[in-house]
Amino acid sequence: MQLGMIGLGRMGGNIVRRLMRAGHCCVVYDRSAEAVRALAGEGATAASGLADMVAKLEAPRAAWIMLPAGAATEEAVGELAGLMQAGDTIIDGGNSNYKDAMRRAASLRPRGLHFLDVGTSGGVWGLERGYCMMIGGDKDTVDRLDPIFSALAPGLGEVLRTGGREGRDPRAERGYIHAGPSGAGHYVKMVHNGIEYGMMQAFAEGFDILRSAASPELPEAQRLEIDVADVAEVWRRGSVVTSWLLDLTASALAADPTLEGFSGFVEDSGEGRWTVNAAVEQSVPADVLTAALYARFRSRGKADFANKILSAMRKGFGGHQEPKS
Amino acid sequence: MQLGMIGLGRMGGNIVRRLMRAGHCCVVYDRSAEAVRALAGEGATAASGLADMVAKLEAPRAAWIMLPAGAATEEAVGELAGLMQAGDTIIDGGNSNYKDAMRRAASLRPRGLHFLDVGTSGGVWGLERGYCMMIGGDKDTVDRLDPIFSALAPGLGEVLRTGGREGRDPRAERGYIHAGPSGAGHYVKMVHNGIEYGMMQAFAEGFDILRSAASPELPEAQRLEIDVADVAEVWRRGSVVTSWLLDLTASALAADPTLEGFSGFVEDSGEGRWTVNAAVEQSVPADVLTAALYARFRSRGKADFANKILSAMRKGFGGHQEPKS
Amino acid sequence: MQLGMIGLGRMGGNIVRRLMRAGHCCVVYDRSAEAVRALAGEGATAASGLADMVAKLEAPRAAWIMLPAGAATEEAVGELAGLMQAGDTIIDGGNSNYKDAMRRAASLRPRGLHFLDVGTSGGVWGLERGYCMMIGGDKDTVDRLDPIFSALAPGLGEVLRTGGREGRDPRAERGYIHAGPSGAGHYVKMVHNGIEYGMMQAFAEGFDILRSAASPELPEAQRLEIDVADVAEVWRRGSVVTSWLLDLTASALAADPTLEGFSGFVEDSGEGRWTVNAAVEQSVPADVLTAALYARFRSRGKADFANKILSAMRKGFGGHQEPKS
Amino acid sequence: MQLGMIGLGRMGGNIVRRLMRAGHCCVVYDRSAEAVRALAGEGATAASGLADMVAKLEAPRAAWIMLPAGAATEEAVGELAGLMQAGDTIIDGGNSNYKDAMRRAASLRPRGLHFLDVGTSGGVWGLERGYCMMIGGDKDTVDRLDPIFSALAPGLGEVLRTGGREGRDPRAERGYIHAGPSGAGHYVKMVHNGIEYGMMQAFAEGFDILRSAASPELPEAQRLEIDVADVAEVWRRGSVVTSWLLDLTASALAADPTLEGFSGFVEDSGEGRWTVNAAVEQSVPADVLTAALYARFRSRGKADFANKILSAMRKGFGGHQEPKS
Repeated sequence: MQLGMIGLGRMGGNIVRRLMRAGHCCVVYDRSAEAVRALAGEGATAASGLADMVAKLEAPRAAWIMLPAGAATEEAVGELAGLMQAGDTIIDGGNSNYKDAMRRAASLRPRGLHFLDVGTSGGVWGLERGYCMMIGGDKDTVDRLDPIFSALAPGLGEVLRTGGREGRDPRAERGYIHAGPSGAGHYVKMVHNGIEYGMMQAFAEGFDILRSAASPELPEAQRLEIDVADVAEVWRRGSVVTSWLLDLTASALAADPTLEGFSGFVEDSGEGRWTVNAAVEQSVPADVLTAALYARFRSRGKADFANKILSAMRKGFGGHQEPKS
Repeated sequence: MQLGMIGLGRMGGNIVRRLMRAGHCCVVYDRSAEAVRALAGEGATAASGLADMVAKLEAPRAAWIMLPAGAATEEAVGELAGLMQAGDTIIDGGNSNYKDAMRRAASLRPRGLHFLDVGTSGGVWGLERGYCMMIGGDKDTVDRLDPIFSALAPGLGEVLRTGGREGRDPRAERGYIHAGPSGAGHYVKMVHNGIEYGMMQAFAEGFDILRSAASPELPEAQRLEIDVADVAEVWRRGSVVTSWLLDLTASALAADPTLEGFSGFVEDSGEGRWTVNAAVEQSVPADVLTAALYARFRSRGKADFANKILSAMRKGFGGHQEPKS
Repeated sequence: MQLGMIGLGRMGGNIVRRLMRAGHCCVVYDRSAEAVRALAGEGATAASGLADMVAKLEAPRAAWIMLPAGAATEEAVGELAGLMQAGDTIIDGGNSNYKDAMRRAASLRPRGLHFLDVGTSGGVWGLERGYCMMIGGDKDTVDRLDPIFSALAPGLGEVLRTGGREGRDPRAERGYIHAGPSGAGHYVKMVHNGIEYGMMQAFAEGFDILRSAASPELPEAQRLEIDVADVAEVWRRGSVVTSWLLDLTASALAADPTLEGFSGFVEDSGEGRWTVNAAVEQSVPADVLTAALYARFRSRGKADFANKILSAMRKGFGGHQEPKS
Repeated sequence: MQLGMIGLGRMGGNIVRRLMRAGHCCVVYDRSAEAVRALAGEGATAASGLADMVAKLEAPRAAWIMLPAGAATEEAVGELAGLMQAGDTIIDGGNSNYKDAMRRAASLRPRGLHFLDVGTSGGVWGLERGYCMMIGGDKDTVDRLDPIFSALAPGLGEVLRTGGREGRDPRAERGYIHAGPSGAGHYVKMVHNGIEYGMMQAFAEGFDILRSAASPELPEAQRLEIDVADVAEVWRRGSVVTSWLLDLTASALAADPTLEGFSGFVEDSGEGRWTVNAAVEQSVPADVLTAALYARFRSRGKADFANKILSAMRKGFGGHQEPKS
C-alpha cells in the first residue's frame, strides 16, 4: 500500500522504515532536506513538498502527519486539504488534542475528505517493538487502511493472551484498535499518557523513598542503605509492579544508580494537561494523574511565587526566618 | 498566681509579660542568662536553674515549659519531675506530639504530679492579641490554673458572638478550652497547625495563579497584569476568604508585591507531619493537608531524586533530553 | 444613580436593596413576576422585560445581569446588546468564565457598548456586610459607575488597616477594585473561589481528624472525644486559622455538632474548575485547590468506576474479596 | 532443605507447594487442622503446634511465619523464640512493618537466634510465576538459606535482560535480593506496595476518564463511547503503560466491561500507610502514593464528616442547599 509521511523525526522516520520493511511504499517529506534524503536512501520516495507528495500518491491517497501538535499540524492539515480530493485521507498521528480531531474531521467531511486521528505509542522503540495505535474516524476508512495499521502494530508477540476475549475485536490483541469516531483515537492516547504520568510518578516517589531510607534526617540506627538498581531489577520478576516503565528504570539505574547525569528538570507535553482538563470537565476525580502533572511543574521551579507567599506568611505570624537552603 | 516559665524565646517571654501585666508572678529560667536578666528587669523573678525555680515557687507549683519539642522538652520534663512533689503541675506549652503528652502524663501520675499539654497559638502577636489555648489534662488541674489561662487568653474581644452556644463551655468564647484528657490539648493544636498549612497553601496557590495570569506562556491577548497587593487587600472586606492569614498576606504584599526578599525555601514543623500521621492512622483522607506539607518538602528541593527518575524514564522511552532550566 | 438589575435571586435582590438604601434608583426585572413585585413593593421600578427596562433607564444606561453563568447570562447579554445604544454599559455580576468576559467585551466594543465583569462575593450576607467586588473593564466606565460600586462595597468598617498602603488604590480598602481590563474581574473572583475551596477543604479535613480521634480503629487507651463545636469556637480568637469560614463552621457546629442534617453531597460551581484549568494552562502547580475540587467530586460518588477497577485488580493479583461496606 | 511453615493461607500454602516441587521438605502448621491435613496429603509433614514443628526440624532450623502482620505474627515470633535454640532462624514473610523487623531482630540476636524479614510479592500467582523476594538480615543467614529462596524465586524466565548489570548481584535477575540488614526486606516490600497503590490508582483514574467520555454531563456531540476492555487489551502491546497490573485489568474488563459485580469498596493494608509515614518521616514528597491511599479511604466513605462540614459552610455563606444525591 502507499502512504505519504509528513514529518520524519524520531517517530515519523521509524514508522516509514517499519512500513517499508513490510513491503509498503512511502512518499516522504520533511522540511529538513537531509531527513528526506536519508529515507530516500533507504527506499522511500522523496517529495519536495506537500503538493509534490500529493502528486506522487495515487488516489485514494493517504497522508500521515507526524508533526508537533498545534500550529505545525494545523498548517499541514490545511495545506493537504487544499491539495487533496474527495476520497483521500489525512491521518494525524501526533499528540494532538482530541477536540482538534473532532473539529478537523468535521471541517473536512463536507469536501469528501476523510480524517483519522491515530494515537501512536512506541517512542524510539517502535521500529522494533511495533506501535500501539488507537484510531478514531470512520469505520470504512479505518478498514481500508488496515494493511498500514496491521504492519505498524506489534502483533500478538509473546504476550500471554487474555482469556474471555472471544467475539471481541481481534485487532486489540495485535496492538491497534478502532477506538470510535473522530477524536476517539487521540482521546484514548491522551488518557494513555495521563496514566503514564501517574505510573512514572509512582515509581519516582517510590525510588525516592528507597533512597531516602539512608537520609541523615533519620536516627543513625534506623538508616538503611538500599541498592536501588538491584531493587528495580528484582521487581521485574514476579512482583506486582512489573512493567515496561520499570524495565526502563532498571536499565537507567544499572547504568548509574545515582542518576547524576540528570538535572531532574522534567518537561510535560500537552496530553497530561488535557487529561486533567477532561477529568475536570467530566467531574472525575483524578488526584493521582493531576499530582503527577503538578510534580513536573514543580520540578521546573513553577511554584516559586507560591513558596514565597508561604515564607511571607510564616514571617508574618511567627517571625520565622527562612532556613538557609 | 505564681507560675514558673522555662524557655524565654519569642513565645515564652511574651507569655510571661502578658501574665505579669495581669498581676501574676513569674519565676523565669532560660539557658540564656541574658534572656533571664531581660525579664527580671521587667519584674519577673530570675531563677538560675530548674532546682532554683522549684525552690522559688510555692506548692502546689506550676511550671510551664516553652521549649522546642523533642529532646529539650523531654529533658526539662524529666528534670522537673525529679524536683517537684505531689500536687505540683508541669505544663508543656510547646508543639509536642500528643502521644508524648499521653506518655508523660501517665508516667507522672503515679508520683502525684499533674501534667497539662497546652497547645498555644498566637505567635509573635500573642502578647497583644492574647493566646488561643487548647488544654489537655485533668479537670481539677485545669480549673485550679484557670487564672493563668484566663489571663493569657484573648477574651471575648470584638469578635461577633456565635449563636446557639448557650449551655456550652464559656471559656471557648474567651479563647481557651479544656479539650479533654492528656494529649487532647496537643492533638487539637496539631490539627490547628495542619489546617493552617492547608489554608496557607490555598492562598499561596491562588496568588500564584493570579500572578501567572501575565505568564508569557499565554497568548499575549489573554494575559492579565493583576495587582496582587490590591487583591489581597480587597478580599479582606466582605469576601469569603477573609482571614487572619489573608491579613498577613496583604501586609507582606503591600510592603513588596514581588516578595523579592524571600527565597521560598519553606520549613515545616512537626505538627504538619503528625497531622498526616494521625489521618493515616485513623483512615481519614487528608488530601489537602498532606499536599500542603509535601509542597513545603518540594520547596526545599526534596524531590530531586524522584525528578531524576522521571527524566531517566523519559529518556528511556522517548529519547527525550531534559530541557534547559 | 440609576441601575437596571436583571435577575432577582438571593444575590440580585439584595444588591438592589443595598443600592436603594444608599439612595440609588433601580429598575428591576426577573422572569418571576413575583420577585419583581416584591422589590417594587420596596421601592424599585418594575420592568416587564429587558426592552421595558432599557426604556425606563436614562442614557448612558447601566444594566447589571445577575444570572447563572452560561446560557442564561449569554442570552441576556445578547438581548441587552440589541436594545442598548452606544455609551451604555452591560455589567455581568455573576460567576461567568473570564474568557467569556473577554469575548463579550470584544464583541460589544465595536458598537460603542461598554462591558464590565464584576466578580461579586458576599453571598446571603452581602446586604448587611456589603459586597466585595473585583471589576474588569475600561477605566472610564468603572470610574463613571463608582457611586454604584461604592454603595455596594463594605467600606473600611472596623477591619484593621494594612500598613504600607499609602499611594495604592484606596478602593481596595473599601472592598472593591478595578482589577484590570475585561476578564480581570471574573479572573480574580475565580481565583477567590478556588482559594475558598482549598480553605474549606482544609477545615473539613481538620475537623474530620478531630472527630476521628475517637475512632474505634484506634486502641481504646488512645482515643480522644473532642468537642468539635468548642474547638471551632476557641480558634476564633487568637489562633492562626481565624477566618470567616471558621465563624460559619462554629455556627453550624454550635447548632449541631454531628451535622446530622447534612448528607455531605457537595456541589461545585464552575469557578473551582476554571481555577484548575487556569493553573494547568499556566503551569502552576495547584495541588491543594485541585484536591479540594476532586474531594467534592468524590463526595458525589464520582469515582465509582475507578474504585471498581481497583477492586478488580486486587481480586486479580491477590484474590482479595471486597470487604462488606 | 528443610523449612517450617506457620500459616497456610493463600500465600503460605503455595510457598510450601513450590518448595516441595523443588525437592525441599516442609513441616507445616496452621491453626486450621484442615489446612494442615491438605498439605500433608500433598507430601508435607504435619505439625500439631509450634513445639511439634520445632521438634520435627533439624538444627539449624528455619521457620517461616506467613501470618497477618501485627498480633498474630508477634505471638508466633515470641513462641518460636522460646522454643528454638542458638543458630536457628525465624523468617517473617508477611507484610510486617520494617520497624518491627528491626526490633525483633535486635531482641533475638542476644540469644543467638537469626531473624530474616522477607518481603514476598506474588499473590495467588506465585505458585506458577514464582515469588519476588526482598530479604533483610545477616548475610550469612541469607546465604545459608539460599536454596529456599532460589527455589521460590521466578528465575530468569523469558524477561529481557537489563544491560549493564555485569558485576551486580546476580540474584536480582532471578527475582530475589538481599536488600540489607534487618528491616530492609520489609522496607523494600513496603515501598513496592506503595508504588503498587499509585500505579493502580493511575489506571483506575484513567479508565474512569475513558468511561466518562460518554458522560451525560458533556454536550451530546462531544460524547465518545469507548470500549474500555479493548483499550486495556490494546495497551498491552507496544504502549508505555504495559504492565502486569494492566494485564489483570484487561482480564477483568474482558470478563465484564462494566465491573458490575464489584462495589468499589477498596480495602488497604498496612504497607500503603507505612509508605506514607516513611515519606513524611524522611521529608520526601509522595503526592501520588498518598493520594492513592486516600482514594481508598474515600471509597469506603471515610470522608463523610468532612463532606458534611463542607455542606454546612456552603449553607452558611451562600444559603446553598445540598443537591439531591
